[in-house]
Amino acid sequence: MATGHEHTVKAFDNDIGVLRALISQMGGLAEEAIANAMLALQRNDQVLAKQVRKNDKRIDALEAEIERLAVQIIALRAPMADDLREVVAALKIAAVVERIGDYAKNIAKRIPMIYGERNDTRIEAISVLPAMAQVASEMVHDVLNAFSARDPDMAILVHERDKALDDFYNSIFRVLVTFMVENPKTISQVAHLLFVAKNIERIGDHATNVAEMVHYAATGRYMNDRESDEPFGM
Amino acid sequence: MATGHEHTVKAFDNDIGVLRALISQMGGLAEEAIANAMLALQRNDQVLAKQVRKNDKRIDALEAEIERLAVQIIALRAPMADDLREVVAALKIAAVVERIGDYAKNIAKRIPMIYGERNDTRIEAISVLPAMAQVASEMVHDVLNAFSARDPDMAILVHERDKALDDFYNSIFRVLVTFMVENPKTISQVAHLLFVAKNIERIGDHATNVAEMVHYAATGRYMNDRESDEPFGM
Repeated sequence: MATGHEHTVKAFDNDIGVLRALISQMGGLAEEAIANAMLALQRNDQVLAKQVRKNDKRIDALEAEIERLAVQIIALRAPMADDLREVVAALKIAAVVERIGDYAKNIAKRIPMIYGERNDTRIEAISVLPAMAQVASEMVHDVLNAFSARDPDMAILVHERDKALDDFYNSIFRVLVTFMVENPKTISQVAHLLFVAKNIERIGDHATNVAEMVHYAATGRYMNDRESDEPFGM
Repeated sequence: MATGHEHTVKAFDNDIGVLRALISQMGGLAEEAIANAMLALQRNDQVLAKQVRKNDKRIDALEAEIERLAVQIIALRAPMADDLREVVAALKIAAVVERIGDYAKNIAKRIPMIYGERNDTRIEAISVLPAMAQVASEMVHDVLNAFSARDPDMAILVHERDKALDDFYNSIFRVLVTFMVENPKTISQVAHLLFVAKNIERIGDHATNVAEMVHYAATGRYMNDRESDEPFGM
């Protein structure tokens, strides 16, 4: 389709530039969704919670756009080696960011069930969860920067932070279980907080997976473990 | 690369056949993982639980193989329209089946924490979870058959069953919360059962997502909702 090699190269660079920009945009929306979901949780702000759920459609639409574009690039430009790895990475990263958005949306959805009809019980853990979410959100932010910069070292740093987030999760898990034991009437509400903590931990896992993809796209080598890939925690 | 159109078409059909066979194989392993995880849970069988965790690597390896092959097909054969949709669907379905395997593995990992040191508490819900898992596993089975058969109607039937699975989940959620309230000493163990129930519900969600992909790949039209896409459930 292109008339010369240089033309093809430029067209490919343009395409990849568009992919990167779309992924950045998705990442920004996902970070915003996490921050707003936590704010809504802290304040029991149902209006903001609804907004988070509504905005998720924009993240979904961006993923569909990235998928369309990535497939088109592979089919039309037939990129090889490094370039192909990068397009495939973009495709997979978009799918992960879409899931991160889903986790934020899921947190927003649980807020009414966490507060329930009684507002009389003060659940202290609620004030710890935003700090945990902040750690996860920064991992998302930094790993998408690492993708933009094709920086495998930055990706490794994000990967290493997942351990701290898991520790954070385990500690909150214990706090919530203890709270349930001491306040059996709140069990149903606090169970939803367990899932909120789990969702945040999963966001960190996903950022860690993206770190592995970024590392592979930039170097052609795998980081040496895939353990973080699974939905776990505790 | 190919010498004539017919040659290309045949090569493409072969490639797609290999993709389908690999996905079937992944699906079989995922179903086996779900069944064994539930058996291990019922019997507190740590050996079987370890086996489930170990076998997950085979599912991961198959996904990597499918990804490699799908990208190769797109790059070398430059399929258009229906064919391209099908290859992309295979790529996405493989990623979903890999996640389903992860959920089964995660259930297996929780078994030691569910039984803990005391084996004296009988948690009745454990005997209900395998029935729920059976429903989810059949959804996985049927939706992969729908993919093999390019059958959008079969995909719609799977999609419709997700509602029943969600009801099942909500009912188990309530049973578990009630059990926690009545047996506060078991809260930590039962919290892990909440996550097991959630994992099964998520397997059903993933089967539902695959149903949407199969429908789109076979017809070029989207089913009209994406709500089931998110990690949720009461």
